[in-house]
Amino acid sequence: MKEVIEKLTDALGRSKVLTAPIDLVAYSFDGTFEQRVPDVAVLPESTQDVVTVVKIAAEHGVPIVARGMASGLAGGSIPSAGSIALSLTRMNRILQIDPVDMTATVEAGVIVTDLEAAVAKVGLFYPPDPSSNKQSTIGGNIACNAGGPRCLKYGVTGDYIMGLTVVLANGEVLKTGGRPIKNVVGYDLTSLFVGSEGTLGIITEALVRLVAKPQFVRTALVEFDSLDDASRTVNAILAAGIVPATLELMDETAIACIEEAMKLGLPLDVEAMLIIETDGSDEEAVVREIEAAARICRETGARQVSVAQDEAERARLWRARRSVSPSLARKAPNKLGEDITVPRSAIPEAVRRIKAVSAQYGLPIVVFGHAGDGNLHPNILFDRRDPAQWAAVEQIVGEIFRIALDLEGTLSGEHGIGTFKLPYMVEALGPTSIGVQWHIKRAFDPQNILNPGKVLPQ
Amino acid sequence: MKEVIEKLTDALGRSKVLTAPIDLVAYSFDGTFEQRVPDVAVLPESTQDVVTVVKIAAEHGVPIVARGMASGLAGGSIPSAGSIALSLTRMNRILQIDPVDMTATVEAGVIVTDLEAAVAKVGLFYPPDPSSNKQSTIGGNIACNAGGPRCLKYGVTGDYIMGLTVVLANGEVLKTGGRPIKNVVGYDLTSLFVGSEGTLGIITEALVRLVAKPQFVRTALVEFDSLDDASRTVNAILAAGIVPATLELMDETAIACIEEAMKLGLPLDVEAMLIIETDGSDEEAVVREIEAAARICRETGARQVSVAQDEAERARLWRARRSVSPSLARKAPNKLGEDITVPRSAIPEAVRRIKAVSAQYGLPIVVFGHAGDGNLHPNILFDRRDPAQWAAVEQIVGEIFRIALDLEGTLSGEHGIGTFKLPYMVEALGPTSIGVQWHIKRAFDPQNILNPGKVLPQ
Repeated sequence: MKEVIEKLTDALGRSKVLTAPIDLVAYSFDGTFEQRVPDVAVLPESTQDVVTVVKIAAEHGVPIVARGMASGLAGGSIPSAGSIALSLTRMNRILQIDPVDMTATVEAGVIVTDLEAAVAKVGLFYPPDPSSNKQSTIGGNIACNAGGPRCLKYGVTGDYIMGLTVVLANGEVLKTGGRPIKNVVGYDLTSLFVGSEGTLGIITEALVRLVAKPQFVRTALVEFDSLDDASRTVNAILAAGIVPATLELMDETAIACIEEAMKLGLPLDVEAMLIIETDGSDEEAVVREIEAAARICRETGARQVSVAQDEAERARLWRARRSVSPSLARKAPNKLGEDITVPRSAIPEAVRRIKAVSAQYGLPIVVFGHAGDGNLHPNILFDRRDPAQWAAVEQIVGEIFRIALDLEGTLSGEHGIGTFKLPYMVEALGPTSIGVQWHIKRAFDPQNILNPGKVLPQ
Repeated sequence: MKEVIEKLTDALGRSKVLTAPIDLVAYSFDGTFEQRVPDVAVLPESTQDVVTVVKIAAEHGVPIVARGMASGLAGGSIPSAGSIALSLTRMNRILQIDPVDMTATVEAGVIVTDLEAAVAKVGLFYPPDPSSNKQSTIGGNIACNAGGPRCLKYGVTGDYIMGLTVVLANGEVLKTGGRPIKNVVGYDLTSLFVGSEGTLGIITEALVRLVAKPQFVRTALVEFDSLDDASRTVNAILAAGIVPATLELMDETAIACIEEAMKLGLPLDVEAMLIIETDGSDEEAVVREIEAAARICRETGARQVSVAQDEAERARLWRARRSVSPSLARKAPNKLGEDITVPRSAIPEAVRRIKAVSAQYGLPIVVFGHAGDGNLHPNILFDRRDPAQWAAVEQIVGEIFRIALDLEGTLSGEHGIGTFKLPYMVEALGPTSIGVQWHIKRAFDPQNILNPGKVLPQ
């Protein structure tokens, strides 16, 4: 490793190669509890720098673990033992915004909200909105196929990636996709890298598709006595041809946590609340859409429907949803947020079974998430200093995954697999799929130096 | 091969294995001029039948060329020498329609409009609408990632495929994806099979995502003196946040052909016409949207904007676009339709260069297509009995591809590569991409028995 570090320093210069323990700690963790200090952290400033790193690593068979801002929630960017942590954060330039063809060319380290703000200046919109978007990078978002509340209407990160520049395990630079919106020329390599968590290649640039910025938005907060009614409402709204930008669910435990922390005057005797938001460029159409959704809510048994009449009221309605995470932090020293998806119709059954697990293990589990996509975030509240609680959390995670799989759902909607969900991959996908994925992994990375030990179980 | 045919017949029965020359002719062609008679045609009735065929083929190293209704336009389903033609047409059952979660599970041989009609009965909508949809199968549509006019708003076939059942080259059955709308669990195998034209595995079933059926539609036909104005209009409409279901372009040559054949009273002195269609579930919003689009057309220099006031008028407006193909057939004995895509802003330049090529070679080239996606179908009109014309056509095809690539476009938006575009693949994608694609191909099909000689150049 000493030789590798010398070669890296000679090739890239001292400013891009960090080895002091105090520096390396910064590259040792992600958004989870896991931590492992890399042997060296490298901060490339160009695709060519990444090529240099990969070639040196390949020559010596040293693992490379790429990372953006490392806000991931599945351990995917935690360095493996004896590895190079490759941080793309300095590659943060927006190279081009094309307002006519509605595209942006960006380096992997661009922060998502920086991209959003830059394109908004020319009336354009980058829709994917993971909660991490003020910290997380577009490269990390692509590597995990990040989602967010707006995905119901607009789709996930992968739906906005037209092409990628990727450094392969042998140091070759691959360009995938391109500027054409429709493109059926060979295998869809772009989609293969989306969600591959740095295990098939290192994404250094992306060509991003944009849309016109919606000018108007309307928001409703809806209370339901019964979770089943809330779930039926979600389906009824979509069946009516209404596609809200956002259709967020909070269960009674989430509501109780928020109310305890924030005193917003939320009702404590409802089983669920929905936040519904419509958006678009024609104000009257946006209003008609939220009113149609509100009408359906009333027909399907909502106790109360509050449609925001102005921006201040809208902010007030969103306060509830935005307060979920900080509220949980007050309730218990630690939380572990999962990311299952189930078919929409299975949401009530999933929440009921999760509640039963919560009762069984004696730890609160708060459920909220993107109801329109069937993407739920059960958050387990606990104290990690208590070994019994930590042991229970590990059991509960397994139970939650089994609930998802049993309801024809899966392990992750938008966080990815990393190391945290590895033990459940065979159960989720079956041995044939895992075998095929290993064939792909070996085809791209025969030495297994790109983020080894992630995504695919041994 | 005799032994292979015997084994196939023993395993599947006579009714599923055709060897008479008169039967085999039916499996020798696609929608192009190419033709090659297979040694045997097999008509499986289940995924298990396909497994049986693949295992026998693998044992003997015999190529398998899968096909649906073989309406493809790139030679992708033409049997290779000494191959088994595997027709999925008997696997035409719609296995399940789930009106709540809005999905359908179908066998690969289901005709696209049959799927569309079946889901429409429960208020649902399968949007992709290739012109072949009355003949072509969902399996073929997936294998080529078929498009159509509605793709501007709704996306291409791949955007509606949530999961696949695929028989791999070793006879294993792989299930990809699943019922969750969001799914970041391992590599995106579903997208890898979409557009792979039967070279990575044989798709036998698909889980299809549906949406609510739009209840209302409005249509406008717009005439432009200048092609540049028409193109700027397309961009202005999208920049205004209007997303029409359809934004179709016809150039002056197309208009002249239609008028000559159909006498619809179309103007012969305009450079371009657009057909714009908005749709949705709120009639007033749909009307407002077409009116907003019409206003933009007038502002950007349209000579005339006709908005259909009723269904009869709408049918009349569509007659022009629908008449393109039959009109071309009257104009010349043969036509060859290409399928390039360019960035939207490059459409006028692409059309101008194509016209220059037409003049240079002395053969008419009609251009129409999906302007909102930058997907153009230049159709070369000629007489194949004239060897000089046929030689010119081959030159023209190369020129058209070079125009597309030069304008940062590509070879195919919705037809695929097959054999027709193989000679241009290295130029389009570069050697690194082709190398990576071969790695994938070998990982899936080490014996190269799945549709060999298609998609990837040797």
